Parts: sequence; structure tokens; C-alpha cells
Amino acid sequence: MLLSGGLDSATTAAIAARDRYSIHALSFDYGQRHRAELDAANRLADHLEVVEHRVVTIDLRAFGGSALTGDIEVPKDRPSAELGHDIPVTYVPARNTVFLAFALAWAEVLGSTDLFIGVNALDYSGYPDCRPEFIAAFETMARLATRAGVEGGELRVHAPLQHLSKAQIITTATDLGVDLSLTVSCYDPGDDGAACGGCDACTLRREGFAAAGIADPTRYRDVS
Amino acid sequence: MLLSGGLDSATTAAIAARDRYSIHALSFDYGQRHRAELDAANRLADHLEVVEHRVVTIDLRAFGGSALTGDIEVPKDRPSAELGHDIPVTYVPARNTVFLAFALAWAEVLGSTDLFIGVNALDYSGYPDCRPEFIAAFETMARLATRAGVEGGELRVHAPLQHLSKAQIITTATDLGVDLSLTVSCYDPGDDGAACGGCDACTLRREGFAAAGIADPTRYRDVS
Repeated sequence: MLLSGGLDSATTAAIAARDRYSIHALSFDYGQRHRAELDAANRLADHLEVVEHRVVTIDLRAFGGSALTGDIEVPKDRPSAELGHDIPVTYVPARNTVFLAFALAWAEVLGSTDLFIGVNALDYSGYPDCRPEFIAAFETMARLATRAGVEGGELRVHAPLQHLSKAQIITTATDLGVDLSLTVSCYDPGDDGAACGGCDACTLRREGFAAAGIADPTRYRDVS
Repeated sequence: MLLSGGLDSATTAAIAARDRYSIHALSFDYGQRHRAELDAANRLADHLEVVEHRVVTIDLRAFGGSALTGDIEVPKDRPSAELGHDIPVTYVPARNTVFLAFALAWAEVLGSTDLFIGVNALDYSGYPDCRPEFIAAFETMARLATRAGVEGGELRVHAPLQHLSKAQIITTATDLGVDLSLTVSCYDPGDDGAACGGCDACTLRREGFAAAGIADPTRYRDVS
């Protein structure tokens, strides 16, 4: 499964564990601006007691094209009603395709037939590679790409958060005992991992906790 | 386009150039056993006068599972009639999926809507990710994965060698003026780039030149 260090992938991992999968977690050092995300992925891998956690280094910066890997500024303080209509500048070109391709390679070596990814269609319809039709098309392609497909085996891409709201995800994670204070959603955290409170990811996360009626354990650097 | 340094991708590049595409060539340092392949890719990029050639380092060895990246022995001296029935040990798990995913990321940044890959179904039906149905499924997925797909644009994965025999590929390359002595097909070349003459790739290549009636310019280390 893909483990980013964020709230969504932590919840996805907890769902996979509940459903009795043995979790092999994969994270990427892809030239993202900050290390806080990978630090969080390491903490979550421990917290969730995964079987194995690997971090693969890939250079998506080589191609440029995103506020998360390049020099484009991360937008701040946009109202959530404005999010999800256009493709945001924080979109990393073909990121989920690249990440799932690596997960597929590892799954094939492990003999696993189940990939997990924490994409969510409702909050981030602005990202083309978070849409349910993308996940379904990747699954179809992946079956044809691998031994499993040739030999008649199954291969599934699980995206259990696909149709949940951020509030539902937070409630699910809390019910499953995930310590959400370990997760980092912010696109622009401080060196100490404190969230900016103003980027699109922080906005959606704050509103999610509020809507779920659950106290937000996030450390914000701009808010007391 | 994906440029490996082999005969097939060199021919694919020449076809793309003939069809007046500006070529941005992408090669991978993926932990393959030998450097001869990347040396050949660099020579071909010059020879074919591509606009740009990038080599991206990725660690497919991190997952293991192939004679081309791991410690499994490269098989030798198998008759060509035996090839293409089973998935060979030289298969690298999900390799073409990973390579095409990176090409898709770069294409999206470049604003390109055309990916080229030199896969060939006839000679290598043993590789699941060389099959026409895989290429078609990747194209469908890629359209959904990217801005182009969201914004109603086109995106095509060209595999012009898909239904050609090795002899037809060699004839096409020769007609288009490709210097095939620059290409390396061998899975187990010497330090000087000389081909072993006995691996599956050498067997198919030698038989291809013979069937095309074209003198084989390959330097073999076992044959005078």
C-alpha cells in the first residue's frame, strides 16, 4: 500500500489492517518540498505495525511542473468552496500513476494481488488521478501488465476512501484507533512539522475535524 | 519516447522522426546489470538528433525479481522456438508500466500528447507488458490520469513495432538510415559492449538479421 504520512493513507492502512491484510507500506522521496511528510510516514508505519516499510527515491523534480516539487508558490487561504474545480498548482504530474506503478512492481515480486491507495474523490476532484475512473482504469491496465493477469490471477486496487467525506474519514480513523496527531496533511509545514493552517490541505483538514465534531490534534504554527 | 539503446526503440525513434515528431527521449538507469545499454542510448540520442535526452535513475532492484536486475542467471542458447511461451526470468516486474508512467509525467509537463514505446508483440509475447492489450489499457488509463484527459484533450501511446517481426523491424530501421551497429540488444554484454551471442535477445536479433537478408553489424564476443 501507498503510505504518504497523511491522514488519508493512515486511515486506508487502518482499514486494510482491520480487514486482516498484512501491510507492506511504500513511501516515496520524490523531491517534495519538506521532509515532514516522510517523517510522518515512518512514525505511522511504526504506529500501524506494518510488516515492512520501504521508501523509494524517485526524481519527479527532474520534470518540474508542480508547487509541491518545484518553485511554484503554494496557494494559501483559499475558501474550501473554491477548491476542487480546477486542477491545483500542487498537482504533481502523473504522480499516482508513477506511485501505483512502483506498488505494482513490488506487489508482483511479493506475490501480492492487492494494492491500497488512499485517494479521495470528494474533496479533491481537482486532481485527475484521484478520480474513481482513474483507479478503475489503472486496475484494468495492471491486470494486463503482470504475471497475475497472464496467468488468470486477480489483481485489485483498493481505494476505500474514494467516496468518503473528510469528516467521514476522520471518524473512521478515530474509530479504528489511529493517532491522527502523527499525520501531516500540510503542503507547507515548518521545519518542526507544524502545519501552516492556510494551504488547501490544511483548510480541508480543519473543516473535516470540525464537521466530524472531533478535536483537531494538529499542531498549527499560525494558530494557537 | 522511451529509448533503451536497443534495436526496437532506435527503430521507433526513427519512425517518430520520419512522422515529424520532435523527440524528447527518456532512458532509465534502473539497476540493470550492464552499462552498455545506457551507453548505446546516449549514442543513439546523438545519432537520431533528438531534441532532448534525459536519464532518470530509479531503483527497481529495491524489489528484486528479475535476471536483468538481480542475481538470477541469464539463460543462454535456448532455441528461438522455445521463446515467447512462458514469462522469462529476464522479465522485470511492471517495468513498462513504471517506464510509461515516468514518460507520462514528463509528457504532461512538456505539454506533449504522444508517447512512443518500442514494444513488439510477436517476438516477445512472453512479457505481459509488451502485449497490445496492455498498451491500449495504459493509454485509456493515461487519458484519465492527466490534465489532458480532464480537459478533453487527446493522449496517445504509439507502439509502431507492435505487429512487426524482428526482420521487418530491421528492414524498417535500415530503410530509415538507422546505424544499427550503435544498438545493443544483449542481456549479458561484455564490459566493452560486445554481445554474448547466446541469450534470448541475441538469438532473436541474429535470426532477425538473417531473415531480413541484411548483414548483422553486431559485435559478438563468442563469434568471429
